Amino acid sequence: MATVDRWLLPDGIEEILPPEAASIEIARRQVLELFQRWGYEFVVTPHIEFLESLLTAAGEDLELRTFKVTDPLSGRLMGFRADITPQVARMDAHALRREGPSRLCYAGSVLHSRPRALTTSRSPIQIGAELYGVSDTAGDLEVISLLLSVLKLAEIPNVHMDLGHVGIYRGLCEAAGLSGESEHALFDALQRKAIDEVMLLTQTLAPDQADRLRALVGLCGGREVLDTARQRLAGAPAAVLAALDSLCSIADALAQRFPEVPLYFDLGELRGYHYHTGVVFAAFVPGSGQAIAQGGRYDNIGADFGRARPATGFSTDLKTLVTLGQANMVEPLTGVWAPYGEGVQLWQAIRQLRDAGERVVQALPGQTDADACEAGCDRHLVCRDGHWQVAPLAS
Amino acid sequence: MATVDRWLLPDGIEEILPPEAASIEIARRQVLELFQRWGYEFVVTPHIEFLESLLTAAGEDLELRTFKVTDPLSGRLMGFRADITPQVARMDAHALRREGPSRLCYAGSVLHSRPRALTTSRSPIQIGAELYGVSDTAGDLEVISLLLSVLKLAEIPNVHMDLGHVGIYRGLCEAAGLSGESEHALFDALQRKAIDEVMLLTQTLAPDQADRLRALVGLCGGREVLDTARQRLAGAPAAVLAALDSLCSIADALAQRFPEVPLYFDLGELRGYHYHTGVVFAAFVPGSGQAIAQGGRYDNIGADFGRARPATGFSTDLKTLVTLGQANMVEPLTGVWAPYGEGVQLWQAIRQLRDAGERVVQALPGQTDADACEAGCDRHLVCRDGHWQVAPLAS
Repeated sequence: MATVDRWLLPDGIEEILPPEAASIEIARRQVLELFQRWGYEFVVTPHIEFLESLLTAAGEDLELRTFKVTDPLSGRLMGFRADITPQVARMDAHALRREGPSRLCYAGSVLHSRPRALTTSRSPIQIGAELYGVSDTAGDLEVISLLLSVLKLAEIPNVHMDLGHVGIYRGLCEAAGLSGESEHALFDALQRKAIDEVMLLTQTLAPDQADRLRALVGLCGGREVLDTARQRLAGAPAAVLAALDSLCSIADALAQRFPEVPLYFDLGELRGYHYHTGVVFAAFVPGSGQAIAQGGRYDNIGADFGRARPATGFSTDLKTLVTLGQANMVEPLTGVWAPYGEGVQLWQAIRQLRDAGERVVQALPGQTDADACEAGCDRHLVCRDGHWQVAPLAS
Repeated sequence: MATVDRWLLPDGIEEILPPEAASIEIARRQVLELFQRWGYEFVVTPHIEFLESLLTAAGEDLELRTFKVTDPLSGRLMGFRADITPQVARMDAHALRREGPSRLCYAGSVLHSRPRALTTSRSPIQIGAELYGVSDTAGDLEVISLLLSVLKLAEIPNVHMDLGHVGIYRGLCEAAGLSGESEHALFDALQRKAIDEVMLLTQTLAPDQADRLRALVGLCGGREVLDTARQRLAGAPAAVLAALDSLCSIADALAQRFPEVPLYFDLGELRGYHYHTGVVFAAFVPGSGQAIAQGGRYDNIGADFGRARPATGFSTDLKTLVTLGQANMVEPLTGVWAPYGEGVQLWQAIRQLRDAGERVVQALPGQTDADACEAGCDRHLVCRDGHWQVAPLAS
């Protein structure tokens, strides 16, 4: 690599300079403080782990996006975390082993060997919250409400929320005896809303079962979709109708709590189908094809770590929050400019100011008061009658 | 891997549970806030980069500790950061390109494919500060003072500081015409204070030059070492004497600023010799063989990224700060326990409390006031005369 190219970063890998880095840090703190005010406890998961632990219960998609290396100590294959959620599930199942509900939250970089989309970062800063031990829709409602509160904190305008429930498709497939390849093919066609393919793939099924699966293609839109679904899916297995009930109850509570957030429903959209088991959700803003935050229920993921627990949660990307958010989280810099000098009185005066929370930038040899402004200082430290005092900077 | 083993973590890789994770997060904030009060600006460097950028100006040691993978997008070799300092130097040299001094700081995980020592973590959380554009000892003094202030903030008891200067050995070797393999062999013998080997390796040199190099083995101890060095190294090249002067001036200023911190000098100890160019330093506590924080001058590292700049800085490990520190940074949990319910009045009461900074944990179906204590709550929310109010919990 030529000297001049050594600063090149790989595609989708970013460095963050001042003042953007300060915005990210402030957003991190504010979101984590919000999590804390909701009772969520902070945990830190490793950046690297044995691949089998990392990919437990995760879809093929995550495996393809995971960087892999051999551990020189154990000779075993390791992966760099591409998602934090499965790691937190392991903590709940193995290390914490609590009886009652467990609320956990985290923040940290993840790495994707391939970007999700052409222009997507390969190193998002994932921040999220997970709720374990609660199978009731109260759990789903809490995490969706928390997600919307995070987006509100970041002041992201024009958010809308997509809601679905993978139990509806799963229940209909089960009732129709669809599984394996045929279920996968139908799933794929549904995601693309390819109605012709869906018709073809369901033509050998009993007419009422085929009708219900076909109905999923069109069951997307506002709150009225849930009422239409009740009619179109009437006669479906109890699990499917219960899933529909859950969606209704969550939708009604969210409409009361966040009347300003439009809700959309798509019963054929099965975000993270292989991973999720119940209500799934994603937040969008106009002009961005990718969800800005997403989550859902993934009961029993902990079984692979020795303990099955109901689980639901969400995650988002701190960089996205800061980029799209209108919250001006960083306060303008202020500070005291101190002259250059190694005298102990000057040192003590500086230390006292810093101990009191003041930002004090000391001049380095060759610098003068003229450099104070660039250093973000609005006052300076001057010696009067043998005492160091803070005085306004002549502007 | 059997189900039961999926939770196993690789050696030297840790997960951090509550409440330790909260201590780490608080320590992170407090140290970054201290950096800010000293005028240091926060930056975020990538976790993964092209290997050549990552290892620029770094020693062989760092290369051997770096995990490597092939980038599927570019086909080029990448490495996971094992040290953040060279990345920050690149930012200063390439992305920021400021004329005057630049103060930068950072915090983040690094990964080591092999641990530094048998019991050392392979995933420390590196936190540190770097000062660019200042060749004067005022720069060294500032970063060492900042390092000591960080250790003081974490309330780490019985810290002592080791100081050295790689310019002394380098200058003596240059004057003696030692280079390449012979310089390396002598360096190696000096690190082990293997006086017999040092005698042997210097026997072909002019007597006064051999004497000065041999003197380095014994030049370790308190402040008096610097005076002894002046005598033993008299007649050495000007650069060596200037290096000695720098050490003296820094030692005197530190003794005034931090009279409680014992200073040790070791002119033969050449921590990070291949990387450093001037004053080097490390902080120790009794009972720990490894330095708990270290740093030094590494002028001109930026040359590889197109711009040579004087540079000095230090780094430490957040986990070490929290483990060894006596500062009780985490305040005991308090909070309001809210009953289960989806009513909008209850939601609004909870939201108002949270907006006011209060921690409110809402009961989930099946939970009662009996669970409030485990959730860290000392009060609860009760409905009186149709209004939600905070009341003490009957204990």
